Amino acid sequence: MKLKIKLMGWSAGLPVATLNAKTAEKLGVHTKDRILIKTISKKPKSISTILNVIHKGIKKDEIIVSSELKKRIGLKISQIVEVSLAPTPRSMFLIKKKLDGNVLSLKDINEIIQDIVSNSLSEPEIALFIAAMYKQGMTLKETIYLIKAILKSGEKLNFRGKYIVDKHCIGGIPGNRTTPIVVAICASAGLIMPKSSSRAITSAAGTADVIETIAEIEFSMKEVKQIIKKTNACMVWGGALEMVPADSKIIRVEKMLKIDPKAQLLASIMSKKLALGSKYILIDIPYGKNAKVSKLKALELKKDFEKLGKYFRKKIKVILTKGDEPIGNGIGPILELIDVIRILDPNKDGPKDLREKSIFLAGEIFELTKKAKKGKGVAMAEEIINSGKAFEKFKEIIKAQKGDINKIKIAKFKKDIFAQKSGKIKEIHNKKIASLARVSGCPVDKLSGLFLYVHLKDKVKKADKLLTIYSESKSRLEEAMKYYRDKKPIKII
Amino acid sequence: MKLKIKLMGWSAGLPVATLNAKTAEKLGVHTKDRILIKTISKKPKSISTILNVIHKGIKKDEIIVSSELKKRIGLKISQIVEVSLAPTPRSMFLIKKKLDGNVLSLKDINEIIQDIVSNSLSEPEIALFIAAMYKQGMTLKETIYLIKAILKSGEKLNFRGKYIVDKHCIGGIPGNRTTPIVVAICASAGLIMPKSSSRAITSAAGTADVIETIAEIEFSMKEVKQIIKKTNACMVWGGALEMVPADSKIIRVEKMLKIDPKAQLLASIMSKKLALGSKYILIDIPYGKNAKVSKLKALELKKDFEKLGKYFRKKIKVILTKGDEPIGNGIGPILELIDVIRILDPNKDGPKDLREKSIFLAGEIFELTKKAKKGKGVAMAEEIINSGKAFEKFKEIIKAQKGDINKIKIAKFKKDIFAQKSGKIKEIHNKKIASLARVSGCPVDKLSGLFLYVHLKDKVKKADKLLTIYSESKSRLEEAMKYYRDKKPIKII
Repeated sequence: MKLKIKLMGWSAGLPVATLNAKTAEKLGVHTKDRILIKTISKKPKSISTILNVIHKGIKKDEIIVSSELKKRIGLKISQIVEVSLAPTPRSMFLIKKKLDGNVLSLKDINEIIQDIVSNSLSEPEIALFIAAMYKQGMTLKETIYLIKAILKSGEKLNFRGKYIVDKHCIGGIPGNRTTPIVVAICASAGLIMPKSSSRAITSAAGTADVIETIAEIEFSMKEVKQIIKKTNACMVWGGALEMVPADSKIIRVEKMLKIDPKAQLLASIMSKKLALGSKYILIDIPYGKNAKVSKLKALELKKDFEKLGKYFRKKIKVILTKGDEPIGNGIGPILELIDVIRILDPNKDGPKDLREKSIFLAGEIFELTKKAKKGKGVAMAEEIINSGKAFEKFKEIIKAQKGDINKIKIAKFKKDIFAQKSGKIKEIHNKKIASLARVSGCPVDKLSGLFLYVHLKDKVKKADKLLTIYSESKSRLEEAMKYYRDKKPIKII
Repeated sequence: MKLKIKLMGWSAGLPVATLNAKTAEKLGVHTKDRILIKTISKKPKSISTILNVIHKGIKKDEIIVSSELKKRIGLKISQIVEVSLAPTPRSMFLIKKKLDGNVLSLKDINEIIQDIVSNSLSEPEIALFIAAMYKQGMTLKETIYLIKAILKSGEKLNFRGKYIVDKHCIGGIPGNRTTPIVVAICASAGLIMPKSSSRAITSAAGTADVIETIAEIEFSMKEVKQIIKKTNACMVWGGALEMVPADSKIIRVEKMLKIDPKAQLLASIMSKKLALGSKYILIDIPYGKNAKVSKLKALELKKDFEKLGKYFRKKIKVILTKGDEPIGNGIGPILELIDVIRILDPNKDGPKDLREKSIFLAGEIFELTKKAKKGKGVAMAEEIINSGKAFEKFKEIIKAQKGDINKIKIAKFKKDIFAQKSGKIKEIHNKKIASLARVSGCPVDKLSGLFLYVHLKDKVKKADKLLTIYSESKSRLEEAMKYYRDKKPIKII
């Protein structure tokens, strides 16, 4: 059917087309079907994309295209194109091939990833790819292909430097905000640390949410390069960089399905590190009760990362850390930032556990890069923090990201929670603590969250303060109190 | 977040809610996320549904709901409701349980099917369910549970009668339009045949498309009952009956994925037959080269249907028929209808293969219901056709469905294709023939399609007519000619 191009009033962020319901009916297509748009010329260009059907705001002889789609095949407003139901892309057969237990080639995986990026595969189709990876597993070779394909589909930083380092934590531990501290220490010592981070998905805060409380986090690759040139480092939101668009789309469907196949987890982390040009990578895997992974699973991941490091010729060190309880005092964007500053500022006194872990991680990076001799990394990191240099570096990076560390605000409402009996802290449940912080408003309400006064094995007396809940909304504070009473995230024996 | 109810300007056909993009951002939700809508009262009602985010046409403090959603929990325009991100439904964990190789209980499967119907599961989540059925298979028990759950979620016909019969063909053979002929013969003999059919998905025509050329096919259960009371039978589109809404949704995702797990195929067919109250069911499974299934797979399906028949206490007979080539002359809605009428009208001469197969199927039904003695069914069916009674019955049913058999029209354009050499017909490729008919305009352009003059093993001379392509569009006719030359669906040796 011949239709006239109309441009979408906003950016959909991805290639997508919209038709009038009557036109769609005539074509025999429905919302989420794949349609083929073909230009009319001697050398026609074509693209397949996912369809959206609406009832108002479009004429029967029109097709609304997103600016991404317009750009992809160079469409002009009012241009006439041929629109039809698109054939199934070959990548669907490749996904089925995987689901049937076959091994995919680099070419196969490239094709699947390209189709994911170009929106030729719908979310149910991506779900099938995830199910196939989950059920059949991926060989090391396939995982490597997946990393290469994801990398190929995105943008790279292309920053030159001998000492480009990165750290990554697989997450799951509330309050465990080591990144800003490690970045500040390492950058002070002359290491290059282009840190891209994620926002919270199921946790109370991601590093991106924490930094966003006082600075900007959405920059282009070009801007990131400038920030790094100035300060040796950055702490930005990975989502804005278009480094790994395929990964972002797969993760979006994974979140719906609550399935996270190992190959995709490895590829997601590795592709980002490689896109940023990291040569030394420290990976922190917290394990234990209520952590993301058991010790067994953590050891398995460690081996996988080491193999991938060898293949891609990167120095990767994987450390397993205890993850039985939250780390630090603050849980939630601003409260975690306050912990970070209390640790970095030599005139203040921050939570010991978070300070020690951050210094340990920075020390490991110093030894990995041979900036420090074996066994001397921690001392070097400690000295940098004590000297105030790390704090200065942190302020410098925040300033380069158009921020100001004096922007810190405190939530309007708070409520303390007290021990109902004397005894010893037996459990502080990671997932319940994260949920409690989310009920109070995290991560959207950046000032909300928790301040934890206790840790495992601490002795408490009846009526001792266990934690304070902060929120910008009185009703959410009430909900959080109710959640605390119902779920009992802290157990005393 | 508290929002004001606004009603959608049209029926979405399913429970769905729409938010302003700014509001969605504040809530931290995206299009296709699952949100929870909760009424504010002492006994709040709540429902979870899939979200749609738009940029215009809705205020920040509003939520647009579909009429289905409004009805489901009794919402009023301008009513204030509490909206939040919905927790993952338990059915998602059940789907994962299946994917991990566990067997599901009736309660489990009921929960999944209920969530599919109520739109609490998104399409990627349904895709995961399909992948789980595909990879793990379903036991006979699970298949029975699936049938029961699908039945429970829909409407039944509730027609009383001793001789309610049905026939089903698993499809895949172009031109194989036996249903209208079998229905006419059986209904003439006093059998009750409430036939619901599908539209074409990948074929040139479904029975629903064929009947729609001259009659209406969308009726409510109540109307269907009236038609059957009058004529003993009907030939309507199953999609309008809301018999198996869960099945329709699963099939929609299956089509995207090009995956059709056996349990779902069995459940899809059986649930519809049971919803219509059929007591005698004849199932036709064409097998062979380029058919849907091999002989082995056909035998396996036969056994499954027989087991299900035994469990549900229905007389099921499964017959395997040769499906190596198209049947009849016409392929496409109106061209197949013309075949049907040429066979039913005693004054006309229709294609022998289609006539014989239809009589054979009707004969089998007569023997299954004991209307005829063993070995006498075919003779009985033949007599009914020869007497003109079947043709009268067919016209009666068409009339009851507000149709008229004199409505038949012929396509504007046609083109003949001739043999390029003398020899014997070696292959008439089912799938390529179906695609050729689709290129010419099927099933949307009901007058388009093919007229086949030859069958396998026929001897032809160079320049003999092989087929005629019909179309309402000159350009589609050109495309079809090109497709024929490229794909060569007919081979001569």
